Amino acid sequence: MLKNDLFLKALKGETVERPPVWMMRQAGRYLPDFMKLKDKYDFFTRCRTPELATEITVMPIDQVGTDAAILFSDILVVPQAMQIDVEMRPGVGPWLPNPIRDTKSLDKVVVPNVYEELGYVYEAIKLTKEALNDRVPLIGFAGSPWTILCYCVQGQGSKNFDKAKEFCFTQPVLAHQLLQKITDTTIAYLKGKVEVGVDAVQVFDSWGGMLSPGDYQEFSWKYMQQIIDALKDEVPVIAFGKGCWFALDTMAKSGASALGVDWTCSPKNARYLTGGQITLQGNFDPSRLLSSPAEIKKMVKEMIDAFGKDRYIANLGHGILPNIPVENAIAFVEAVKEYKA
Amino acid sequence: MLKNDLFLKALKGETVERPPVWMMRQAGRYLPDFMKLKDKYDFFTRCRTPELATEITVMPIDQVGTDAAILFSDILVVPQAMQIDVEMRPGVGPWLPNPIRDTKSLDKVVVPNVYEELGYVYEAIKLTKEALNDRVPLIGFAGSPWTILCYCVQGQGSKNFDKAKEFCFTQPVLAHQLLQKITDTTIAYLKGKVEVGVDAVQVFDSWGGMLSPGDYQEFSWKYMQQIIDALKDEVPVIAFGKGCWFALDTMAKSGASALGVDWTCSPKNARYLTGGQITLQGNFDPSRLLSSPAEIKKMVKEMIDAFGKDRYIANLGHGILPNIPVENAIAFVEAVKEYKA
Repeated sequence: MLKNDLFLKALKGETVERPPVWMMRQAGRYLPDFMKLKDKYDFFTRCRTPELATEITVMPIDQVGTDAAILFSDILVVPQAMQIDVEMRPGVGPWLPNPIRDTKSLDKVVVPNVYEELGYVYEAIKLTKEALNDRVPLIGFAGSPWTILCYCVQGQGSKNFDKAKEFCFTQPVLAHQLLQKITDTTIAYLKGKVEVGVDAVQVFDSWGGMLSPGDYQEFSWKYMQQIIDALKDEVPVIAFGKGCWFALDTMAKSGASALGVDWTCSPKNARYLTGGQITLQGNFDPSRLLSSPAEIKKMVKEMIDAFGKDRYIANLGHGILPNIPVENAIAFVEAVKEYKA
Repeated sequence: MLKNDLFLKALKGETVERPPVWMMRQAGRYLPDFMKLKDKYDFFTRCRTPELATEITVMPIDQVGTDAAILFSDILVVPQAMQIDVEMRPGVGPWLPNPIRDTKSLDKVVVPNVYEELGYVYEAIKLTKEALNDRVPLIGFAGSPWTILCYCVQGQGSKNFDKAKEFCFTQPVLAHQLLQKITDTTIAYLKGKVEVGVDAVQVFDSWGGMLSPGDYQEFSWKYMQQIIDALKDEVPVIAFGKGCWFALDTMAKSGASALGVDWTCSPKNARYLTGGQITLQGNFDPSRLLSSPAEIKKMVKEMIDAFGKDRYIANLGHGILPNIPVENAIAFVEAVKEYKA
């Protein structure tokens, strides 16, 4: 039995004394102890070494006090497992030297045996569950097929993922084949995580907001829905689409337990667009954690008042930034814990 | 008297046979003749030489057939005139070697005499009006104060303008001083354009969508409204905020003649959010111009059907991309001209 089950209660829509709180990318570069490990081990070594992934995952529970842990990993371990080369270049970010842009490169992409290719993730989950010792629930995650396609086709991060969109709009048959391969892999990958003990999963559609509503349905949501359908009876699913306010009405009917919201969508708009019944998660502007702790606490109180304390998970609207002082992250978490309606 | 006044009629909300059409950045890098000039003259030489700016401005009227011209220039000529160094680095984009981040750098920023510092723009407008010979109206433009601040503080383009947001959130007094200086300069600059003959002005808030609704009101809209208030009795004003769907209700009450909409906001949502009365402009995904001409024509028809032919200006949802084939841009324009309800 979990000692702190606030997060799971909120996912079920149960009444809580105060909302649970965690932060996207909470196991990351704003933590000095993380930076020490970063200096010693490169990015994928940290992902692939269960002891390191566990240590990093537990850090924010001990040091910042969030109500849920999220496994330290990266959305790009999935294309790696599909035999697509993925490097993490310092100062550049993700770098895929052989982007997928034609039949030949697409044919080399496999739907792998996830237990063989991603066994290190499952080991990390088992170790993390032991280390957490039922203190808080553990979240597993994956990128959305569209977001993974963006990197696989563009070959790197981008302001507008123009090459990824060009691929979809000029070669839609190939694009859908790639999306389906990613979807099949992701479903198997997440089911494996559930088997070894994650308490919830979140699907990150970081780049869904680059698409028009019609293209979003065709190239992103269709595959998100497949993932939700495959997982929802086994585990609570959180669907997060950055910039995807226009699809919140569809998402609310998907069977997901909760929806992530970014900071451009006000709590009032988010409740309105989703019909007011589903649990929402978000949506503090990560840059606003640069304000003073006193200002942060005031803004967090306003945010919870606006979302309401029930059916709500306090979080940021996207990942925490590397330059956030730890004390400001702690102020954010404390403000939620101190919340009184 | 203008021979083609469709654009001005749409701005007034008058009934038209078909909507007018133009494309943001229509005088740009997708045109082979533009690329020839680009090879010969650097960016700011093209902006600062009235004959070149005129030639470039008129190009899409002759070659693509849009219903309005927009003066070839750049939003960053305004900070240049304010004594902030701005370079355009090939492959990098805007580069400001001395970003504004403290009192000392802010104190050096002046509100200039626009006729002295930006006289080359006014000369270009006069020359362009002659060259257009009343064929179509001419649009003048400026960046929004927030968007200009983004470059002045960040020092270059950015995915999230984190340094610009940090400046606003940690030094709001300085941020507002800078925003007011930019606003005062922009109002004088646009009034000067009206004096020499532009038929409408557009204010581009390219990065407003990086802000939460509350921060948008404080750091962007407040200054956009000042500009609209100062100009609206002299010339029709179009306000465009990329990603600013959340502020469309406020914008609709601003006195602007039209509002730009990006492709993430469906025509239906845009009409709903703006109350259904104001002229809207947009919102074809620029990447969708990579589809075939036949597909483009089909999608344009659907777009106009969804917006309705009146109180509507067909356009893209952001600037045209450099890799768009000219024939696709022409297909876009032709589709609007062929429109029948």
